[in-house]
Amino acid sequence: MDQPLRVGVAGLGTVGASVVRILSRRENALGRGGRGIRLVGVSSRTRNRDRGIDIDRCAWFDDPVAMARSQDLDCFVELIGGSDGVAKAAVEAALDAGKHVVTANKALLAAHGLDLAKLAEKRGVALAFEASAAGGIPVVKTLREALAGNEIIRVSGILNGTCNYILSRMEQEGLSFADCLADAQRLGYAEADPTFDVGGFDTAHKLSILASLAFGTEIDADAIYVEGISSITPLDLKMADDLGFRIKLLGVAERSKSGIEQRVHPTMVPKDSAIAQVMGVTNAVTIDADAVGEITLVGPGAGGDATASAVVADISDVARGRVGAPFGLPTARLDKLKRAPMQRHEGGYYVRLSVLDRPGAAAAIATRLAQADISLESIVQRRAETPNDDPEQRSHRAVPVVLTTYATSETAIRAALEKVIADGHIAEAPQLIRIERE
Amino acid sequence: MDQPLRVGVAGLGTVGASVVRILSRRENALGRGGRGIRLVGVSSRTRNRDRGIDIDRCAWFDDPVAMARSQDLDCFVELIGGSDGVAKAAVEAALDAGKHVVTANKALLAAHGLDLAKLAEKRGVALAFEASAAGGIPVVKTLREALAGNEIIRVSGILNGTCNYILSRMEQEGLSFADCLADAQRLGYAEADPTFDVGGFDTAHKLSILASLAFGTEIDADAIYVEGISSITPLDLKMADDLGFRIKLLGVAERSKSGIEQRVHPTMVPKDSAIAQVMGVTNAVTIDADAVGEITLVGPGAGGDATASAVVADISDVARGRVGAPFGLPTARLDKLKRAPMQRHEGGYYVRLSVLDRPGAAAAIATRLAQADISLESIVQRRAETPNDDPEQRSHRAVPVVLTTYATSETAIRAALEKVIADGHIAEAPQLIRIERE
Repeated sequence: MDQPLRVGVAGLGTVGASVVRILSRRENALGRGGRGIRLVGVSSRTRNRDRGIDIDRCAWFDDPVAMARSQDLDCFVELIGGSDGVAKAAVEAALDAGKHVVTANKALLAAHGLDLAKLAEKRGVALAFEASAAGGIPVVKTLREALAGNEIIRVSGILNGTCNYILSRMEQEGLSFADCLADAQRLGYAEADPTFDVGGFDTAHKLSILASLAFGTEIDADAIYVEGISSITPLDLKMADDLGFRIKLLGVAERSKSGIEQRVHPTMVPKDSAIAQVMGVTNAVTIDADAVGEITLVGPGAGGDATASAVVADISDVARGRVGAPFGLPTARLDKLKRAPMQRHEGGYYVRLSVLDRPGAAAAIATRLAQADISLESIVQRRAETPNDDPEQRSHRAVPVVLTTYATSETAIRAALEKVIADGHIAEAPQLIRIERE
Repeated sequence: MDQPLRVGVAGLGTVGASVVRILSRRENALGRGGRGIRLVGVSSRTRNRDRGIDIDRCAWFDDPVAMARSQDLDCFVELIGGSDGVAKAAVEAALDAGKHVVTANKALLAAHGLDLAKLAEKRGVALAFEASAAGGIPVVKTLREALAGNEIIRVSGILNGTCNYILSRMEQEGLSFADCLADAQRLGYAEADPTFDVGGFDTAHKLSILASLAFGTEIDADAIYVEGISSITPLDLKMADDLGFRIKLLGVAERSKSGIEQRVHPTMVPKDSAIAQVMGVTNAVTIDADAVGEITLVGPGAGGDATASAVVADISDVARGRVGAPFGLPTARLDKLKRAPMQRHEGGYYVRLSVLDRPGAAAAIATRLAQADISLESIVQRRAETPNDDPEQRSHRAVPVVLTTYATSETAIRAALEKVIADGHIAEAPQLIRIERE
């Protein structure tokens, strides 16, 4: 029987503590598969904190980089976080010293994934990151291994639980974005500085990892178009409902005529679609592929135990010798990602305008869209809440007008809206939400 | 670079032909990951049939057993089907000759999985069967690898597309079971002899595989309680809808106080649950596990290309050296399955009775249930379609009465219904459908 795999865990936050607990609880079960797994070292910022875990039998390292280089370690688990600094230094040190690395760090992979994969390849060790993309959902393994026979057409999903929680509550309770965000912060679902989540950047990091695996391309998070959810209003959610949609923050990566589209933005999805059923902090990923068709994986995208489940699966793969190319292919075989510019995106759009209540305003807007060859699928003008018989007074107040379009291009809809703005019929910037019908 | 993995495919039906097509179409992509994959042999019952595939460059074998033993093969792909006969002989011959085996044959695994795994283990080769459990959904890999850090609590799912198609159409169009079955046969979703599908046996075979992987137990398909869908009526589906449920044929394997429950039966699931959204021929599997919580995988459970996608993933794993214990653990470490008898099952029940329209009948039935300590959650008595003022005439006609119960035991509900039958108040055998609220 082989010696057990000697593991060191750097970062003892919620996920790290849970990894330690699972490795202890499952020691026998994990060993039954063949080579055992033994926790030999831990590192964290503060030593004397009660985390409810037993780390007395392992070595303590104040410096994770020193642990990464330790002779007593076969596998370094990085749960420190952050795209640079000590997390990067420690992962590089571990790979360079010929140790397998397991990480949940999406920011690190989004920024340096290719270089780290090259280093892992050079040293013949694993760089495993199941936990980085959708928490407990095994989407990395599915893309890298289970769909080996497929050409992937599209990967899309709800990859950020905070945003889905906020949108779900806004929809179900008619609350504002600010109120839901405050609640999410109170409940621990959102950080004190929520920009990273609600701005779409966390989703973008995860999407960059999935896109690389799906399309065999070098990871390129800078090529992602990103919009967050802070502009979504209760009225948008109400209108979406009336039109048969829900609004979700989706990450989408897909092949298009002009390259690979990678985009993160609030999206109208049909109410009866599988993705629309995913509420609260749950994540979901849908993969369209040429042989299998469509498969959807749903589960917890965050949380200590769920994320730790993915980390331990990676450690178990390493222990069983399942060490392959981090992104499914040798780095030299990964294609450069050919970015499809967002202006080339084609699809349907939801447009909400605050139209000044003047004769001819609606006609002028419809004309601008017609001039751009944009076909309207629906127009909804909501009655003003207080009737007003005076045309002069009416002309200074705005009423919401919602349009949905058939497929058109981002360039066309943007150009048409520029003209609508220039015409002076609207009181505030238009709200634009993309529609995905599949 | 290693020599390519030399593959032989036995059985050129829809799945086999699709495997051949995918191996040819993806030859370069599959090779980019490391060791290439080359189709070197095929075997089928009839040689000269146009399958739209190019098999001119590989060796033809009239006898799959001869191909299984061929020196020119590293990996034998069994797509012949059937629990015994030539499929079994060929798989045994291949394993015995030290060749990796990939199979989609659930009947073979349900009957002989343990012995075949022992043989594979002895020869140090793979016995891979992703395609056997839920077609294109990577549930075998998920249970065996991605959830290594978890203790599995429950696996359940819609594992037979034919049944789900029939139930979906019965619900949506108010059609009878017989009419929907006939349609399914016309569309190629059901076999000429549909017993295997609609009787629940196909689901049971798949469930036995998932249960072994989930609980680390010796596969034991005989320990499964099986009920099919042929007794479900449009009235049951209508009542389910009124009560907030849908009816699905579920396979469920779960830990209970008395052992492992394995059961296949029509099940009432809440209309807003994820599993209730799965309509038509689509399959879905939900896994409850201690660390990750709940994850659900949804996708095509059958069809040539989807099943072939799983077969090719297994071949690719073999080519990359990912060869582990077939059921996740060495066979000597698999526990004997401790069967939880169905009488011990606890849960809610839907009971539909044809009650003779006499004074006191409903009271007598309610009394029988109360005597058995069964609490009723709801009682719905439907008005007879034609009113009748004559008590004597009314006493010979039956009206449907539907009860739902809070959690009780299978023994208690069965015993109570025996007494209700003996009391002579009902005109036909009761309909009993189990309720799963999670």
